[in-house]
Amino acid sequence: MAGQTPAMALSSCEANDMIIIGEKINGTRKEVGAAIVKRDANFIGDLALRQFQSGVTFLDLNAGGLPEREPQDLAWLVQTVQEAVPEATLCLDSPNHLALLAGIEKAAKTVMLNSLSAELFRVEGVLPLACQFQTELIILPIGDKGIPPDAEGRMTIVRQLVEMTRKGGLPDEKLYVDPLVMAISTGIENGNITLETCRKIREEFPAVHLTCGLSNISFGMPLRSILNQAFLVLAIQAGMDSAILDPQNRELRAMMMAAETVLGKDRHCMNFNRAFRAGKIGPVKGS
Amino acid sequence: MAGQTPAMALSSCEANDMIIIGEKINGTRKEVGAAIVKRDANFIGDLALRQFQSGVTFLDLNAGGLPEREPQDLAWLVQTVQEAVPEATLCLDSPNHLALLAGIEKAAKTVMLNSLSAELFRVEGVLPLACQFQTELIILPIGDKGIPPDAEGRMTIVRQLVEMTRKGGLPDEKLYVDPLVMAISTGIENGNITLETCRKIREEFPAVHLTCGLSNISFGMPLRSILNQAFLVLAIQAGMDSAILDPQNRELRAMMMAAETVLGKDRHCMNFNRAFRAGKIGPVKGS
Repeated sequence: MAGQTPAMALSSCEANDMIIIGEKINGTRKEVGAAIVKRDANFIGDLALRQFQSGVTFLDLNAGGLPEREPQDLAWLVQTVQEAVPEATLCLDSPNHLALLAGIEKAAKTVMLNSLSAELFRVEGVLPLACQFQTELIILPIGDKGIPPDAEGRMTIVRQLVEMTRKGGLPDEKLYVDPLVMAISTGIENGNITLETCRKIREEFPAVHLTCGLSNISFGMPLRSILNQAFLVLAIQAGMDSAILDPQNRELRAMMMAAETVLGKDRHCMNFNRAFRAGKIGPVKGS
Repeated sequence: MAGQTPAMALSSCEANDMIIIGEKINGTRKEVGAAIVKRDANFIGDLALRQFQSGVTFLDLNAGGLPEREPQDLAWLVQTVQEAVPEATLCLDSPNHLALLAGIEKAAKTVMLNSLSAELFRVEGVLPLACQFQTELIILPIGDKGIPPDAEGRMTIVRQLVEMTRKGGLPDEKLYVDPLVMAISTGIENGNITLETCRKIREEFPAVHLTCGLSNISFGMPLRSILNQAFLVLAIQAGMDSAILDPQNRELRAMMMAAETVLGKDRHCMNFNRAFRAGKIGPVKGS
């Protein structure tokens, strides 16, 4: 664990860019799981590179698979991805602190851990690693009884967890709090609860980042991409400055930049215009 | 002026639907202007019918052209459109009270007038017509010195105008207040000023409707449709319940319904699912 810090890695981004955590290297996806088992470094390296070139800050690495294999699988993913894309910052995604530790030990630089919740095994397993290695850390307001149904319940857990990370010497700036997104198809207030949680976190903990796995909102619905886009716009207004998503989804990226622009976060509309001219948003050039 | 009222016309809409004012019959558009001059009833009737079938509540009628022709042109538009689509409610769009009066006299039922501002000639010309004929009325916070640059300046004018309409006996429910949308390319706070104005109007005048000409936000920018969609989502959250737009723009309609859904305004997600199954949003069936 040495070399470039995430802060340095971030410095190449536009000041107001959302911090994207690329979600595609996930062993629970069939092709990725098979590539991990086969140690197919080309497949994984390519997936890493393509996400990185689309403009991510972090690459999520989830080894999936059998628990007993997970430490060695995650360590292999770390090694493979950092060889393919040395500039990327890695996000080690596991509930298993042994797997996280195996990944950290292989990592050439500081990582992000995904994630700490208030579940006892995570507090005991993940929290000490995050504090010891001063990692970036995703925080989920989940307790031993599950996900609180309302914003205030989630805030209670966020407060407990931030108290723990502060005690452990981890600065708030390293935290990425996920307000949790539930499917709108299972509860009509689910979107509003997430947005309210965002606003409360932003108000009470101004230094933390806010991230989320956006696509849960549209689970069970048609036209999921449209619903995800609408919710992303609202989440950005509520203070979201990061998202876990497929960075190669051009529609989502365009809507993200559009939201930042109309909300006045893109000075002189420079990012939007530049991304358009570079072909990063809008119709694919030559198509 | 008799028969079905706008309230009755509205009753066929879904409870939570946005109130759409279809913008396409506008004489300043070249083809439409030519059709008005030629008295091409088929062209205009077809434009009216297609918008109506896409699900509008009001059809905006702007005769454009030379001021001396406007009264007879607008009267012809009214007659032509109500013959083609008797169910539609008409929105007479002119700064000229003589044109508005000519349109009202031809109209078979109550109309909407577009628009009253605080400019003296509109207060003297449009306000008495709206009160006398109990029309729906679009209100613009524009004074004799132009558009106030900030939300508070716009609110000052809105307050003056609502005081006038109340004195004239026009209920707040008939007002459609437009917070005014300026291009984000000319001022990075322009979007936020509009949204702030929306929230203030919604708070201070809960019974009025909020409408706007959305597409101004993206003037001078690439990918205008994406910026319009992002801004529409935010406007709906800020209390917008109506919009002046092209009802045949399927992307915008889908995003509008998506925003209402993720904001919890679509119970059991019924409208969204039903619109999808009916092919009103999403890929065009058979294409």
